Amino acid sequence: MKRKLSSIEMFPIGFVRSTRVELEDDNWDQENVRIELDLEQFSEEALTGLSDFSHVEVLFYMDQVIPEKIEKSARRPRNNPRWPLVGIFSQRGKNRPNQIGLTICKLKRVEGAVLYLEGLDAVNGTPVLDIKPWMEEYAPRGEVFQPSWVSEMMKSYWKK
Amino acid sequence: MKRKLSSIEMFPIGFVRSTRVELEDDNWDQENVRIELDLEQFSEEALTGLSDFSHVEVLFYMDQVIPEKIEKSARRPRNNPRWPLVGIFSQRGKNRPNQIGLTICKLKRVEGAVLYLEGLDAVNGTPVLDIKPWMEEYAPRGEVFQPSWVSEMMKSYWKK
Repeated sequence: MKRKLSSIEMFPIGFVRSTRVELEDDNWDQENVRIELDLEQFSEEALTGLSDFSHVEVLFYMDQVIPEKIEKSARRPRNNPRWPLVGIFSQRGKNRPNQIGLTICKLKRVEGAVLYLEGLDAVNGTPVLDIKPWMEEYAPRGEVFQPSWVSEMMKSYWKK
Repeated sequence: MKRKLSSIEMFPIGFVRSTRVELEDDNWDQENVRIELDLEQFSEEALTGLSDFSHVEVLFYMDQVIPEKIEKSARRPRNNPRWPLVGIFSQRGKNRPNQIGLTICKLKRVEGAVLYLEGLDAVNGTPVLDIKPWMEEYAPRGEVFQPSWVSEMMKSYWKK
């Protein structure tokens, strides 16, 4: 069975408001960050019960990516020569097909149609595609492992 | 600052092949499932190094959702009267804006441009939007909690 590769249309459900306005690699926990739902499409009812969860998964559209830089094959993470050449789907770099960012954030509080978060690695103005509550049943099951370049790369990622 | 709500265009990077062809709520671990990357856009290099990771995050487009059923406000999960009315962004139901599904799966093996997975809750033919390696540094940080209806709803979700 061959499926037609038709394009898919999405809309922002809201936007990121962050004290970080320029793309940088590290120290994301330094920032104050919130998501404002788009009030033309949603009311605060779309967030009913969300504060019963400690964390949310935020899916966002990395709209500052330069289309010509999108990698479809393999590259070294952060172009660091000390790290191995890995496929674009074997890393989380931003220059990727469909430009979707995905991060689990601590939910500090919900006020009306605004979510206050900790640990969202998206710059101010980033369009948000979806918000899902983190459920422990969706956590990785079985043994978890990863290559050593990841821990090295992530050393200062969240650091304040 | 008011951002224009312009639409976002995405393309499938591949498709799900699963022994499950009809949407059902539970028992997802019963199925044999793989993702075939679209070979017109990608080669197996896009997966270089992926098998050094135990798990991947799969983002997919739930194309069988009926547009008229998309919830923008609140509903009871699975329309179960015993569970509370929660916002669409406070649950992971499929009838949601942008129809994005997201699941962390065990990576069994990679063969060429095909990923063999365990625990993907997407039916045969589902377009895939992105694949990201699971990194422990992206796990929820701090105390994790969730409301009790979640564990009840998820009781047979993965069950074989």
